[in-house]
Amino acid sequence: MKVLKDRITKDGKHLGNGILKVDGFMNHQIDPILMKEIGEEFARLFAGTNPTKILTAEASGIAPAVSAGMILKVPIVFAKKKQPITMTEAYKEQSISPTKGGATVELVVSSEYLGPEDRVLILDDFLSSARTIKALIKLIDHSGATLVGIGAVIEKSFSGGRDALEGVTVPVESLAVIKEMDGETIIFNEELMAGR
Amino acid sequence: MKVLKDRITKDGKHLGNGILKVDGFMNHQIDPILMKEIGEEFARLFAGTNPTKILTAEASGIAPAVSAGMILKVPIVFAKKKQPITMTEAYKEQSISPTKGGATVELVVSSEYLGPEDRVLILDDFLSSARTIKALIKLIDHSGATLVGIGAVIEKSFSGGRDALEGVTVPVESLAVIKEMDGETIIFNEELMAGR
Repeated sequence: MKVLKDRITKDGKHLGNGILKVDGFMNHQIDPILMKEIGEEFARLFAGTNPTKILTAEASGIAPAVSAGMILKVPIVFAKKKQPITMTEAYKEQSISPTKGGATVELVVSSEYLGPEDRVLILDDFLSSARTIKALIKLIDHSGATLVGIGAVIEKSFSGGRDALEGVTVPVESLAVIKEMDGETIIFNEELMAGR
Repeated sequence: MKVLKDRITKDGKHLGNGILKVDGFMNHQIDPILMKEIGEEFARLFAGTNPTKILTAEASGIAPAVSAGMILKVPIVFAKKKQPITMTEAYKEQSISPTKGGATVELVVSSEYLGPEDRVLILDDFLSSARTIKALIKLIDHSGATLVGIGAVIEKSFSGGRDALEGVTVPVESLAVIKEMDGETIIFNEELMAGR
C-alpha cells in the first residue's frame, strides 16, 4: 500500500532494537484519512473470506479494525487487557507487549461475542513476533469459531512473525512489510507488497 | 439520538450500582453501522467549533473518536493508560475507572501531538462522574491548547458529571442521556435529548 509505505518513510522512526514508532499517524495520534484508506484496503483484501466478526486487541488495533468493519459492515470485537466488571464468562490468553517493556499482557474476550457460528477475521496494527496474533487465534479456538484471515497494517518481517504463523492456512496479509531497519533507514520488502 | 436510545433500551444492561453494560455494541463488541452514525452526529454537533484535534482516552473512546474524526477529517489523539517506550515527553494526569473496580488510571499524552496551536474536541464513550473528561481537560491545559467542545456517546446524568463540569464554558453534548436506571428499566432524559 503505497500511501502507507510513504507515510512510514516520512513519519516512522526506528528507535533501535527493532522498535518502529508510528505514534504520529497510527498508535497514539491517528490520521483519519490514512486510517480510512487502511480500512478500505483490508476490506478489499478480505471481503471474499465472508467474515462475521473482526477480532483485534485493544488499544492500537481498534482504529484499523473499526475502519475495516465500517466498510465490510461486520461487528468488531476488541480483546481487552483486563477483565472489566461488566464481563462474566470470558476466554483468556496471555501475550507479551514489546512496547511495554516486554510485560505480560492478558487478552480477554467475552464468550457472549464469539461463538462456533462465527467466521473471524483478525486485524491488528503490527505483525512482529506474532505473539498477540497467536493469542487471538487461541481465543478463537476456545470459542469454537473459525479463523478466516489475518491482516496487519505493518509487518516487521525480520521479527519472524510469518514463520511463527506457519501452521496457519488462512490468508495472512500485511499492508506494508518492513524487512530491515538500519539506523534511520527503513527498508521495505517490495516483493511481499507487490501490486499494492 | 433515537437509534442510540433504542439500542441502549434493547441491548444495554443495568448491572446495579449505576453501571450500564453496553459491551454488545460499543465497549467490547462494536456495531460498525451504529458507530458510523455516532460519528456523523458528533460531526454535525461540533463541526462549527473548528477543532484541529480530537482527544479521547483508550480504549473505549477510540471507536467513536475515530468515527467522528473520519468525517471531520481531524486527527485523533488517544490518551494512553501507560507510557509506552516509544513516548518520551509526555503530559500525565490521573483518573479513576469505575468499571475497573475504581482503580486509579494514569492518562498520558505525548507533547508531540498536542500544543498551543490546537483547538481540541474531547470525545468519549461515557459522561458519568466526568473524572476521565476532567483529566483530559487538564492534559489540554498542560499542553497550552484550547478546549472547544466535549461530547459523550452516553451520559448518566445521575452521576453528576455535568455539575462537575460546571466551570467549563464550551458546549457539552451527549447523544443519549440516562437519568435513572431502576432494576432492568433504563429511563432517558428526553428533555436533554430534544431534537435528536
